[in-house]
Amino acid sequence: MREPRYGAGIWHFASYVDRYATEGYADPVSTLEAIELAGQVGSLSVVDLNWPFAPTDVDTGDLKAALAKAGLGAVAVTPEIYNREFVKGGFTNPDAATRRSAIDLVSRAAELATDLGCDYVKLWPGQDGVDYPFQADHGQLWRYSVEAVRELATNFPDMRFCIEYKPREPRNRMVFSSCARTLLAIEETGCDNVGILLDFGHSLYGGESPAEAAGLALSRDRLFAIDVNDNFRGWDDDMVVGSVHLLETFEFFHTLHAAGWEGVWQLDQFPFREDSVQAARDGIETMRGFHRALQTLDHEALRAAQDAQDALLAQRIVKRSLYAAMADVAAGS
Amino acid sequence: MREPRYGAGIWHFASYVDRYATEGYADPVSTLEAIELAGQVGSLSVVDLNWPFAPTDVDTGDLKAALAKAGLGAVAVTPEIYNREFVKGGFTNPDAATRRSAIDLVSRAAELATDLGCDYVKLWPGQDGVDYPFQADHGQLWRYSVEAVRELATNFPDMRFCIEYKPREPRNRMVFSSCARTLLAIEETGCDNVGILLDFGHSLYGGESPAEAAGLALSRDRLFAIDVNDNFRGWDDDMVVGSVHLLETFEFFHTLHAAGWEGVWQLDQFPFREDSVQAARDGIETMRGFHRALQTLDHEALRAAQDAQDALLAQRIVKRSLYAAMADVAAGS
Amino acid sequence: MREPRYGAGIWHFASYVDRYATEGYADPVSTLEAIELAGQVGSLSVVDLNWPFAPTDVDTGDLKAALAKAGLGAVAVTPEIYNREFVKGGFTNPDAATRRSAIDLVSRAAELATDLGCDYVKLWPGQDGVDYPFQADHGQLWRYSVEAVRELATNFPDMRFCIEYKPREPRNRMVFSSCARTLLAIEETGCDNVGILLDFGHSLYGGESPAEAAGLALSRDRLFAIDVNDNFRGWDDDMVVGSVHLLETFEFFHTLHAAGWEGVWQLDQFPFREDSVQAARDGIETMRGFHRALQTLDHEALRAAQDAQDALLAQRIVKRSLYAAMADVAAGS
Amino acid sequence: MREPRYGAGIWHFASYVDRYATEGYADPVSTLEAIELAGQVGSLSVVDLNWPFAPTDVDTGDLKAALAKAGLGAVAVTPEIYNREFVKGGFTNPDAATRRSAIDLVSRAAELATDLGCDYVKLWPGQDGVDYPFQADHGQLWRYSVEAVRELATNFPDMRFCIEYKPREPRNRMVFSSCARTLLAIEETGCDNVGILLDFGHSLYGGESPAEAAGLALSRDRLFAIDVNDNFRGWDDDMVVGSVHLLETFEFFHTLHAAGWEGVWQLDQFPFREDSVQAARDGIETMRGFHRALQTLDHEALRAAQDAQDALLAQRIVKRSLYAAMADVAAGS
Repeated sequence: MREPRYGAGIWHFASYVDRYATEGYADPVSTLEAIELAGQVGSLSVVDLNWPFAPTDVDTGDLKAALAKAGLGAVAVTPEIYNREFVKGGFTNPDAATRRSAIDLVSRAAELATDLGCDYVKLWPGQDGVDYPFQADHGQLWRYSVEAVRELATNFPDMRFCIEYKPREPRNRMVFSSCARTLLAIEETGCDNVGILLDFGHSLYGGESPAEAAGLALSRDRLFAIDVNDNFRGWDDDMVVGSVHLLETFEFFHTLHAAGWEGVWQLDQFPFREDSVQAARDGIETMRGFHRALQTLDHEALRAAQDAQDALLAQRIVKRSLYAAMADVAAGS
Repeated sequence: MREPRYGAGIWHFASYVDRYATEGYADPVSTLEAIELAGQVGSLSVVDLNWPFAPTDVDTGDLKAALAKAGLGAVAVTPEIYNREFVKGGFTNPDAATRRSAIDLVSRAAELATDLGCDYVKLWPGQDGVDYPFQADHGQLWRYSVEAVRELATNFPDMRFCIEYKPREPRNRMVFSSCARTLLAIEETGCDNVGILLDFGHSLYGGESPAEAAGLALSRDRLFAIDVNDNFRGWDDDMVVGSVHLLETFEFFHTLHAAGWEGVWQLDQFPFREDSVQAARDGIETMRGFHRALQTLDHEALRAAQDAQDALLAQRIVKRSLYAAMADVAAGS
Repeated sequence: MREPRYGAGIWHFASYVDRYATEGYADPVSTLEAIELAGQVGSLSVVDLNWPFAPTDVDTGDLKAALAKAGLGAVAVTPEIYNREFVKGGFTNPDAATRRSAIDLVSRAAELATDLGCDYVKLWPGQDGVDYPFQADHGQLWRYSVEAVRELATNFPDMRFCIEYKPREPRNRMVFSSCARTLLAIEETGCDNVGILLDFGHSLYGGESPAEAAGLALSRDRLFAIDVNDNFRGWDDDMVVGSVHLLETFEFFHTLHAAGWEGVWQLDQFPFREDSVQAARDGIETMRGFHRALQTLDHEALRAAQDAQDALLAQRIVKRSLYAAMADVAAGS
Repeated sequence: MREPRYGAGIWHFASYVDRYATEGYADPVSTLEAIELAGQVGSLSVVDLNWPFAPTDVDTGDLKAALAKAGLGAVAVTPEIYNREFVKGGFTNPDAATRRSAIDLVSRAAELATDLGCDYVKLWPGQDGVDYPFQADHGQLWRYSVEAVRELATNFPDMRFCIEYKPREPRNRMVFSSCARTLLAIEETGCDNVGILLDFGHSLYGGESPAEAAGLALSRDRLFAIDVNDNFRGWDDDMVVGSVHLLETFEFFHTLHAAGWEGVWQLDQFPFREDSVQAARDGIETMRGFHRALQTLDHEALRAAQDAQDALLAQRIVKRSLYAAMADVAAGS
């Protein structure tokens, strides 16, 4: 079993603002600087690039050079259909022209992604949804969303589109809020090149079992990509992988492994107050432990325990491999 | 717009135990006594009967007589595929014989439902799921569940089966946990006579917008029945309708009304420490207020506000009708 | 019973950024512009001013003139001990110089508050706490916090200081996270001029009953101020008052009324995507309804029902007054 | 550092009912049988006995003999002030005679606890609180509670009373709902022999950091006892220790260790569908791992990292010891 490729959203290496720290948690980081930081991690193979870049006029040639210098590929482009123009919605904006503008922005992102040789364009319509009871006709928002995704997927048949679902934030309720809802929407598009990007943390704080959600998407050949991180189960805290939910994160990777899934093991951490390079290294170290544990795990015994639905036995079998592997990577071996 | 038919789960009029009050919250109530109490409410048309009855040897003729005397019809039978024999699972039990036993129990319930002229058999596999990370292969539980439902629906083509989804309890995680997951499973059965019973409280504490979930099920012609109650959004408290979330409950009924849905407005309250007849009356009074508000609501203005996604305006339009209607029913007019 | 004074945090009329909409939800709004907007609401008497102002060099004379022109008083100053310099903590920053800087900033805010004739300085140390398990010695953070508050309260014996507690955000866990914890800390300071600002939404999504929390603070003479808003119980959504939890918000005001509390009824709403003046008017209208309902409520009957802990009866008594009052204000009467 | 004493609530070895599995998850287990099962675990030193016993007429001499035979001591008695008679409240029941009856039951439990040589009587007034907004005057419930505890503590000055707080269940809201609230109540009693029993799971799903809560109680010399288990953070699932939240459970024990706390490490697990003896062994094995990790932990380095509030460094230091220790116990060494 070969080592997976590790990746990260390039925003992992940016600086952040929020509604209170309006002056930011640190000085702004340009896209090219973020790529350089990503390169310093040492074990990243690819990055997901949110776009427009910072600043917006980054030259594509310079970008490719920066990626090459950092030893990184671009796995995806994430168009920012959730910033200023789209704060009342991208695909679901009440204004038709703004809905069109969102589709246009994604279309240009798809062209960029093609140019960069990406695997997929990520769709995260973070402002699509509602804030208040009675604010909108949910069926209308659903139709807007499905139609926009269908149009994009049809216009770019050689590109893959991943929908990253999330229960909420920045909207109080998002349209693509759960794995199953998003699968229903994807199947409604009728397009084969649309799938799910499953963010572990979104799934967790949305009340799903991330392992179960991954299994559902896998069973329908729609798990195109993953993002991993951790949280306290009530919000998208985007903490370092495994810093709270070690066992459930391992269960998630076990599900991917059991299905023979071979995508990128990708970080979506937001180290607001931490060193971003160190945070990436720590997250990857934990994923390395998972990879190692999957090799030593007694898969046959676990399968028998799961067939018997024997929770205690299954956990003992898992812990035997997991803790030893984690101890090894923690010790630096 | 004619008054809807009101219904209730017959367990609304039972007494309860829980893991602490093991001696019960009140003296046991037999099925026939519960029917008599349901009749005292005065505005109930139908009840959903959980089965086996209490005691188990209630004669069907006596039951029909009791229903007739109370002026009630039986809208559904709910087989108890979650009690003693099935505590480790009904459709998903690790033991094949117990899985078969669950299907057999539901089959007999379907025969009883046919005999009683019911609209549907309710499937609530409350013990189907897991308690611990790694306890089971989620895909296997899914397949067991889909296959069992398909077998039942195929064997009883003239009966309708409603799956009532719920995030958890008594299992820590249930297989049919959300509206969208359940729709995926239902569509996988390929059977037209399987739909959803949407319990408002389950949807609410599962993090859904119940109105949005109802809309999704309606858009696929799978909303077969509803149960209503209320809770504090963290657990299935089964409180009296509207005692916490007045606006969102009204939004739920507004969605049903907009789709022209004409099913029973049914209570699933658990008045542990309250008078069950009074609790039913109070829940129905609030639903009467909703019905009245739907008649005075400026539907056209609301639709325009929703098209503009103007949350403040939409809420003002709604409140104008809702509060006046609620004031009227509260005043007894 | 005379009409209460209504107030608002001046940030209600600002524009916002968050970690996704980094370009903001609207063009920046200066402090003086925000004051003008607050004046347009028509029923506000006072505002709470976060400080430093926007821009930072607003002249105090100009500020007073703007307040006067808008017909507003300054009820409080809220020093921003949670922005750039303090993102790793204000009172609890690991760096002693930064802790001192936080105390200095509050001290200057206290001088400004004195100059403006404010009732209190609000302490909201939003960055004081932790993000990760094992990140800090919680006892040390507690001591830093208590000592800072004590020093401030001792240095400004004629000013009142209100601690606004909040479970989390922007920190994953805040030091002053609940009403009871904050009361323990306040009593530990030994200072009479320190109390609680109870934010309804913080209390609600922190799992408290806001009415119960208010009662606890009142019983110890520490309820100095309130902020009101609403949310979906999982996050500090800062929605318009009463847009989700009508009954519990009224229960909160009923508790204040029963204790004879006479402070400002103050808004802390964040209308990210809504018109801020309209949002304020809508929140105040609902509070007007509460005020009216408190006048018609059968307090004696309610007290008897509460003595009997008869939930159904208590709710019926309350709804009779509440819905009628809300219908009246919704109808514009 | 010597091995701690391990304990368990005797109900860990009982069978359970809930509101759905009314026929129970297994055949009833008598108190004497439960003691025998507790003895089979092999590493338990003490048990907490809920009382009245099952059946109610267990002879005290037989009980003592059973304990002796099983090699167990009785650390506590837990009077069932939450069963049938008290479903509308124990200390806070609206009926004065029932309130008196609750105090009487605890008094007899205190006599039994004295006879058995227990360390404390546990007070868990699970039915004290409310279900609905407006149901009761929270201040009245608070006074009833404080007065009852004061009376008991005063009447039995040589016995210690532990209040086990819990956010909810079976009541929707309990009076003693958080660590800080309970500390306020305890200090209001003015009695030195009243303290807190901190249940890790209650703290976790109540939104507290259990380590922080323990630190707060320790700082006031009120941490008298602990119960440990685990859950999914939304309910009191009473799962096996460490099956979900390994790091936060270890942080909790680290806090106890840092304060030199030397009480019993006690299980409060509810193995509804699991083998109770195996579940106890698995929970204790994890606690053994914690004990071992505390011995190898670089306390000085951790303290320095915590002083700097360096989350990533602190977690790396902790994981190095924790994973190695857990791997050792998982391997059976």
